[in-house]
Amino acid sequence: MEVLLEEIIEQCAPYKALGKPASYIPELAKGDVNDLGMYIILSNGQTFKAGDYKKPFSIQSVVKPILLLLALMDHGMEEVRKKIGVEATGKPFDAINVTDQSLQNLHINPMVNMGAIAMCTMIKGENYDERFQRLLDLTRHLAGNPAIELDEAVYLSEKRTGNKNRALAYLLKSYGLIEDDVEDVLNCYFKACSIKVTCKDLARIAYVFASHGKMPITEARIFPAEYAHFVNAVLVTCGMYDGSGDFAVRVGVPAKSGVGGGIMAVVPTRMGIGIFSPGLDEKGNSLAGTKALEALSKRMYLSIF
Amino acid sequence: MEVLLEEIIEQCAPYKALGKPASYIPELAKGDVNDLGMYIILSNGQTFKAGDYKKPFSIQSVVKPILLLLALMDHGMEEVRKKIGVEATGKPFDAINVTDQSLQNLHINPMVNMGAIAMCTMIKGENYDERFQRLLDLTRHLAGNPAIELDEAVYLSEKRTGNKNRALAYLLKSYGLIEDDVEDVLNCYFKACSIKVTCKDLARIAYVFASHGKMPITEARIFPAEYAHFVNAVLVTCGMYDGSGDFAVRVGVPAKSGVGGGIMAVVPTRMGIGIFSPGLDEKGNSLAGTKALEALSKRMYLSIF
Amino acid sequence: MEVLLEEIIEQCAPYKALGKPASYIPELAKGDVNDLGMYIILSNGQTFKAGDYKKPFSIQSVVKPILLLLALMDHGMEEVRKKIGVEATGKPFDAINVTDQSLQNLHINPMVNMGAIAMCTMIKGENYDERFQRLLDLTRHLAGNPAIELDEAVYLSEKRTGNKNRALAYLLKSYGLIEDDVEDVLNCYFKACSIKVTCKDLARIAYVFASHGKMPITEARIFPAEYAHFVNAVLVTCGMYDGSGDFAVRVGVPAKSGVGGGIMAVVPTRMGIGIFSPGLDEKGNSLAGTKALEALSKRMYLSIF
Amino acid sequence: MEVLLEEIIEQCAPYKALGKPASYIPELAKGDVNDLGMYIILSNGQTFKAGDYKKPFSIQSVVKPILLLLALMDHGMEEVRKKIGVEATGKPFDAINVTDQSLQNLHINPMVNMGAIAMCTMIKGENYDERFQRLLDLTRHLAGNPAIELDEAVYLSEKRTGNKNRALAYLLKSYGLIEDDVEDVLNCYFKACSIKVTCKDLARIAYVFASHGKMPITEARIFPAEYAHFVNAVLVTCGMYDGSGDFAVRVGVPAKSGVGGGIMAVVPTRMGIGIFSPGLDEKGNSLAGTKALEALSKRMYLSIF
Repeated sequence: MEVLLEEIIEQCAPYKALGKPASYIPELAKGDVNDLGMYIILSNGQTFKAGDYKKPFSIQSVVKPILLLLALMDHGMEEVRKKIGVEATGKPFDAINVTDQSLQNLHINPMVNMGAIAMCTMIKGENYDERFQRLLDLTRHLAGNPAIELDEAVYLSEKRTGNKNRALAYLLKSYGLIEDDVEDVLNCYFKACSIKVTCKDLARIAYVFASHGKMPITEARIFPAEYAHFVNAVLVTCGMYDGSGDFAVRVGVPAKSGVGGGIMAVVPTRMGIGIFSPGLDEKGNSLAGTKALEALSKRMYLSIF
Repeated sequence: MEVLLEEIIEQCAPYKALGKPASYIPELAKGDVNDLGMYIILSNGQTFKAGDYKKPFSIQSVVKPILLLLALMDHGMEEVRKKIGVEATGKPFDAINVTDQSLQNLHINPMVNMGAIAMCTMIKGENYDERFQRLLDLTRHLAGNPAIELDEAVYLSEKRTGNKNRALAYLLKSYGLIEDDVEDVLNCYFKACSIKVTCKDLARIAYVFASHGKMPITEARIFPAEYAHFVNAVLVTCGMYDGSGDFAVRVGVPAKSGVGGGIMAVVPTRMGIGIFSPGLDEKGNSLAGTKALEALSKRMYLSIF
Repeated sequence: MEVLLEEIIEQCAPYKALGKPASYIPELAKGDVNDLGMYIILSNGQTFKAGDYKKPFSIQSVVKPILLLLALMDHGMEEVRKKIGVEATGKPFDAINVTDQSLQNLHINPMVNMGAIAMCTMIKGENYDERFQRLLDLTRHLAGNPAIELDEAVYLSEKRTGNKNRALAYLLKSYGLIEDDVEDVLNCYFKACSIKVTCKDLARIAYVFASHGKMPITEARIFPAEYAHFVNAVLVTCGMYDGSGDFAVRVGVPAKSGVGGGIMAVVPTRMGIGIFSPGLDEKGNSLAGTKALEALSKRMYLSIF
Repeated sequence: MEVLLEEIIEQCAPYKALGKPASYIPELAKGDVNDLGMYIILSNGQTFKAGDYKKPFSIQSVVKPILLLLALMDHGMEEVRKKIGVEATGKPFDAINVTDQSLQNLHINPMVNMGAIAMCTMIKGENYDERFQRLLDLTRHLAGNPAIELDEAVYLSEKRTGNKNRALAYLLKSYGLIEDDVEDVLNCYFKACSIKVTCKDLARIAYVFASHGKMPITEARIFPAEYAHFVNAVLVTCGMYDGSGDFAVRVGVPAKSGVGGGIMAVVPTRMGIGIFSPGLDEKGNSLAGTKALEALSKRMYLSIF
């Protein structure tokens, strides 16, 4: 199997340079487009890896399914559904004009920025430091890696340049969809996006979604299966930005990408996959990473459809 | 198992009257909201049914995946992808304003009317009568039912009142996305929507998508597996109109609904399901039918996520 | 004064080649970008002209205020206001997506295609031939030129290629905003756009709007002053497509342009102006024509603001 | 003439109760819907008044033309045109989704909030306190009333509840359309909206726009005529929110309304009008105030069209 991964990485190498690292903050612009790494955990606990799988990168939007999961764990499906919608918006991830009409809960999807910011208000905690700490703890727990940390430089950059996210948050506030202090909520959101992970971390997290809430090896259940169904369903319809339909057709598994270059792919009941390559396509998805997942899906018949 | 179906039908009975039959043509308005039927075919060939599963109804939008399949069979994936996009539009099924910019192929999704009209031009045939005949033949073949016929009254009503579809077709033509005579193309589309089917027919058709192209019992392959992956993926992201995200979360299987009250649900590798109940929810999906599928999915763990 | 016009025409000559004739039908593409003509009628009956003022061209959208006027004359302001709105749409003239919501009368503006098509249904007449004949008669009467005729070649081209207008008309029909046969209505609209005029004709027509309904010299009133106020007001807010705001700021008079290269400008109580130059800017307004009007407005203090 | 005003005020009395005071801040909600006042200054210096013309109210959006004027006085037309557009947006005044595409200068109109916020950055001054002071000074100067003051309570309420304006400002900032600190800019904008005026003040300010930059009686020019043409043109196309087209047709003069209930109407070369009645129609314009202007326009032939 590792031979297969090596083959795929070699085969996808030409795509690496076709993508461009995100450039809105210097920390992301420094991403090396030559990096391409993969890590896979099978349901029997076996792991396989290839390429630059040890390189750390910022989690960015891949944190969105974890945010959604924590909101589900803290409040249950019914409460979460009251706060957010689950329909594809047909718009880019940071679109401000989701609708011409008064903004309502059902217009905000947890996989786009506006919905993810709203999810931060659904994490329990005395204050937003505690809320973020609980998100970080869950991320560490899902990944089985207590060493996962915030990347301070990325966080400070996000905070400094995040004016479109500020606009989205004030819009939520103006429609009464969030009540807390906007900068507090945004700090939590910016920190969430700035968690530093590796392919292995993403593969482990994906594995828990694939196993519908059970940890690898111990099989300890850490959340109800229905939360995994919920998150995985949302990932298929909206996880790859406005390229989600194309990804469903070409790869066919729940997945979430981030502008840091990471992709977490969930193959329900079978495996968790973490991929990293910082060159992005025009929709903001890792270009070589998507190609590698497509090749892997075809070779291993991963499509859930 | 039939006991389970009976239970579900009883349990969903209160929802029947909450929906409303489509009213834009008299033939659909006559739908009896008390009807609720289900038909299931398992991968071992076993069949189960309950309720008003014998009642015929017009296929309406459930024909869209068949149209897409025939286009794939006639031209292959690459050509079809050049003609249509696969992203969710975030708009209702008959939305005319998919975008503010010049209309392009990638803006039209085969599960909304504009894309389905474009699919009619990708069926091979000397003329549009022949094209429709080939679509009808494929429908009969997939359903294993040579008695499937066009409902003339529905077709004539569709044709008479279909001015929004005419607007969509002329818009496609004005952007060069279709070249043939608009009324010819629309006749084919209106006829496609007016095919008369039963729950059993839809279950059989769904089964072939579920088995990735193989007929029940004989296991004869009638189209490549990758076409099924394609169609099923598109169904998950867009098959239930702008309620697709909610359906993915609550039910979790590829499915297509029509305003005639039918739903075809595909459980890959496991089963094909046909459901019928003419009362629609506000998004145009059979209300009791969706509830029945949700109950079935929970009882039989059907979610693919 | 004719010296002034000559000066302006010379001064605007460099702009002629910067515009492009409309190219959607061959008849318009043949427009000679070197043409630039002006004709002015003052309230004392004096006339001034310069450049290619004798060249005939197709009236195109400049017919819209005449269509609106005839609807007002046939039904009065109250009835017309029930049928159309008067707000700027913020969209190009042929935009199909005026709104995300159900289309209503108030969404259609008489200076964009959809509203002008609706206006055709408000002309009185036994049939659409008679309706068009009445529009042509009014045009001749306003222009004091019984020789004005339909340009058959332009009409047939419009009819053959007018699929976007067909889409707009079927959309109106699907929302019940027009009731008559779509092709009948469109024939009237396409003919209306294909009336052949000169700068002199437009100046005369503009004069009658400027004098609030009175003919030059005889001062015979042919429509109530309030209809002129209505039409002139609509021209200021929407007459120059989505360049109307810029035109109001730079020129400051009610005006209507057409893709044939003509502009009719109304200086209330003072003068009527006809201008022609077939090179269009990106919004569809005659480029050199607009520049000439701007120069004239500055030199003669024409701004009504 | 004062008899005429009294008549109009009596005749419009029934409309007072049909409008609703703005309710987003308590200070505006307290507006007495029974109030209706008018003040007129003719070009010969004569003044006429009727009703509750002495009641103070907050200027709200009526400050927008003064903001635009000060930007013009500080930077000239060319620089201002680089910073803002002048086309109607076809959207409500606080719409956030002016466009689906990247936000550009030309998309923001000075009569809607986003454009007015941008105008604050074009006022010269060491800091935003000084900028606001210069705006207040100009307002006093135009109104000939050095007693005009900021309404602190309104300002603090605006600041506390202005999250949609914050969203608009951060959106501008994220697209690089403003560079200064968002809260500084917003403070200036919120203060601008909170200036306390009377009908007389608005009439005087309107007079200066009507006289194209000259003060009453002294005829001292305080800004070039072309700035008045610019502002008045923008008022006609966009001054009455998305009811501007209707107002142009019914009343026919440049005007600006505010949610405080004030309207400033400019009759070029003839008069300045200030009106106040706090009950608003659904577009945010003073309902009885608009009716009174319509009556006045019909009785005195004010339409500029």
